[in-house]
Amino acid sequence: MKKHINLTMLTDFYELTMANGYFRANMSEEIAYFDLFFRKVPDGGGYAIMAGLEQMIDYLKELEFTEEDLSYLRSKNLFCEEFLEYLKNFQFTCDVWAVPEGTPIFPYEPVVTVRGPVIQAQFIETMLLLSINHQSLIATKANRIVRAAQGRPIMEFGTRRAHGADAAIYGSRAAYIGGCAGTACAIADRDMGISALGTMAHSWVQMFPDEYTAFKTYVESYPTNAVLLVDTYNVLKSGVPAAIKVFKELNPPVKGIRLDSGDVAYLTKKARKMLDEAGLEDCTIVVSNSLDEYIIRDVLLEGAQIDSFGVGERLITAKSEPVFGGVYKLAALEKNGELIPKIKVSENVEKITNPGFKTLYRFYDKETGKARGDLMTLDSEPKPDGKRYVLFDPNAAWKKTVVTNFEAKNLRVPIFLEGKCVYESPDIEEIRDYCMKQVETLWDETLRLENPQTYYVDLSKKLWDMKQNLLLEHSEV
Amino acid sequence: MKKHINLTMLTDFYELTMANGYFRANMSEEIAYFDLFFRKVPDGGGYAIMAGLEQMIDYLKELEFTEEDLSYLRSKNLFCEEFLEYLKNFQFTCDVWAVPEGTPIFPYEPVVTVRGPVIQAQFIETMLLLSINHQSLIATKANRIVRAAQGRPIMEFGTRRAHGADAAIYGSRAAYIGGCAGTACAIADRDMGISALGTMAHSWVQMFPDEYTAFKTYVESYPTNAVLLVDTYNVLKSGVPAAIKVFKELNPPVKGIRLDSGDVAYLTKKARKMLDEAGLEDCTIVVSNSLDEYIIRDVLLEGAQIDSFGVGERLITAKSEPVFGGVYKLAALEKNGELIPKIKVSENVEKITNPGFKTLYRFYDKETGKARGDLMTLDSEPKPDGKRYVLFDPNAAWKKTVVTNFEAKNLRVPIFLEGKCVYESPDIEEIRDYCMKQVETLWDETLRLENPQTYYVDLSKKLWDMKQNLLLEHSEV
Repeated sequence: MKKHINLTMLTDFYELTMANGYFRANMSEEIAYFDLFFRKVPDGGGYAIMAGLEQMIDYLKELEFTEEDLSYLRSKNLFCEEFLEYLKNFQFTCDVWAVPEGTPIFPYEPVVTVRGPVIQAQFIETMLLLSINHQSLIATKANRIVRAAQGRPIMEFGTRRAHGADAAIYGSRAAYIGGCAGTACAIADRDMGISALGTMAHSWVQMFPDEYTAFKTYVESYPTNAVLLVDTYNVLKSGVPAAIKVFKELNPPVKGIRLDSGDVAYLTKKARKMLDEAGLEDCTIVVSNSLDEYIIRDVLLEGAQIDSFGVGERLITAKSEPVFGGVYKLAALEKNGELIPKIKVSENVEKITNPGFKTLYRFYDKETGKARGDLMTLDSEPKPDGKRYVLFDPNAAWKKTVVTNFEAKNLRVPIFLEGKCVYESPDIEEIRDYCMKQVETLWDETLRLENPQTYYVDLSKKLWDMKQNLLLEHSEV
Repeated sequence: MKKHINLTMLTDFYELTMANGYFRANMSEEIAYFDLFFRKVPDGGGYAIMAGLEQMIDYLKELEFTEEDLSYLRSKNLFCEEFLEYLKNFQFTCDVWAVPEGTPIFPYEPVVTVRGPVIQAQFIETMLLLSINHQSLIATKANRIVRAAQGRPIMEFGTRRAHGADAAIYGSRAAYIGGCAGTACAIADRDMGISALGTMAHSWVQMFPDEYTAFKTYVESYPTNAVLLVDTYNVLKSGVPAAIKVFKELNPPVKGIRLDSGDVAYLTKKARKMLDEAGLEDCTIVVSNSLDEYIIRDVLLEGAQIDSFGVGERLITAKSEPVFGGVYKLAALEKNGELIPKIKVSENVEKITNPGFKTLYRFYDKETGKARGDLMTLDSEPKPDGKRYVLFDPNAAWKKTVVTNFEAKNLRVPIFLEGKCVYESPDIEEIRDYCMKQVETLWDETLRLENPQTYYVDLSKKLWDMKQNLLLEHSEV
């Protein structure tokens, strides 16, 4: 199956009506700043993992309006011809800054900021959100699952339950960034170099008169990839004994069994004993079957004998919380070279935005290397010098903490400048390594799966004052 | 952004190792039957909606192994050259039967059956599951939400929270099949004719000095699409008054307001009163903001004044249960023209399969037109004549019910015969109409959102006996 789709129209229709509206109101060239941020870590976790930037960049690089798009838009009888002519000659000229993939990120941080003519900066909203929301969701979930497995490899097994082809492919990519060891998805291997693995389904076993014949036939073809599925009929009575018999006869260099049903804590302990008694201490045990971070944690606590996990539907759909609620909000306008901060007020307090063009720092302790907290400042403020800084909780300004002897790292890098891409995405191994190292800079209290300590994400005094003033202004309406 | 992807490798790696294994064991041409079925209706609902068939057909029509695929496979050092040569000349020759899209379907029903050389019938598993699982999930969820809205239109608004581009595009398609009235996703309109709508985001309002100016500018450009977003600052104090002022001044032919936050039951009642008092009885109220079937049901019970809904993340991700657990299992082999039924036994009872090559009937009452129950028979059994049939519960065979004066409709149609596609997908409007009419054939007890009556899905006596015998055989292992 081939796909050849121009994705420019993968956009909410209102981006188009707004664009045409700005065009007709002679506002298209007004310079606007938009922030992409999220409000809540899924699953009550302590942090999320940034992912999806590479696909967002691809989209922006190739953004164009084809004749097909223009004739579709013309057919809606809502858009003026001059606007369609503008789209025909569309050139992306925005600046874009973003947090690199694999970075732990926190609520309300502007992980992407776009500056440019409002007609452009607004139009790209939908695909920016789609890319970052999807992959950050899966990378974050994967990172939780990987942590629960305490060093045992996690394979991403979810292709068949993904929400369409892209969810399978880029979900596999995001899972790898979050720390998975590989995937079952062959196309993710072919196109992104994420090592794919797999051996047999139950149907393989059913195709043969018995498990012994099925396993023997398999091992003869794949001595270096001999992981046998032992739960087609009865794990302990027939599956494991047949696997043992074949391994003893053929002694392949790689030996493993996989369980995909039943009580895996009980069954793996029994199976391990049977394998060891047969002298097959080198035979590994792989477990799949609707796993997630909670089940993995619990069966390991029960002493399950598992060497690696295949995790499918609950990873590829982020089943426990399948929405990463990233949003894209106007933060400022530029008029005659002057910045005018903008705020979105709401009856839902958590929907109030942080105004202005901001910079995002992470404070790393110079001694321990640990992250002490993040700080948003106005872009015009100087970088903290690392000697001493008083952080305060923006929702409870009397709560303060003094940080000393730290390095303030600007978390965001330029991605596009005046529409030109100035960033090269690292390869996937590099991103994954970076993610693992960055997660290590967080305290255990933040890494906790449930009810973690809230990481400090503070506003500079100037930014906080600006926000309060804007809120006061709007409350007087 | 353009996409040009060959999706043949969007497969679980084990499909490839099994294929090569069958090839090496000289089993590739053995004829196998596989059933695609699901085990549980998401959200505890009474039925699911079949969807995704058209994309499954596209995949099968275009299945081919490119040089890129072959060199990828060669690089894995697991596959023999003769097998790669076979793939190079791959021709799909299977028979495929399926339930048409839009049909209500029930657990354990073989909604797709594939018959053909095992090497082929096995290989296509992953993409068949991916297509049917994803779209059936979303169509089923959409149908629940549409029912909760009791005739008020539901717009699909979820693009930005979808799991990648395909989840947005085909999710929009599936939502439409399930009964949504339209989408916010422009590409779904361009490519599939699903009417897309949209007006403005909060940023539009923020771009102007005040709401009045923002609304006026908008209505001047879009008198026929004037739905104004009234919750950027304060719904009742500023948003609705500004909308009223603009509507009174410009009197556009289409007038509406949209709320995207706050307590929508309270706010819409107040807003309705303000609009009516201003003589704007023709102004509609649209509500969005993390809605689903439960919230819609509840706010309508509270008397919320809402004319239509925009439903985003909880529809496009099927948030409350984002996995449609369709599986693909071997049901029979053909040896020398004889059918050999196959079963998958499991310690998890719900994972036991129904063996044999089956036919699936729905019994429609000739008087009321209502669906009385479904029946799986062996394909070799005669079609029930519609006069009298004793249905019995396969899990409790003593529970019987007699059905008389019915029409037994074979629910499945041929899709491919000997590899040739013999089915033309209806257009999307036809599928949606068919879905609505078929849902009307179900009893209210089955339509209930929570704790519905279980619909009868029974096995013929012959099929049931065959299953019991196979279970007995395996329990003797």
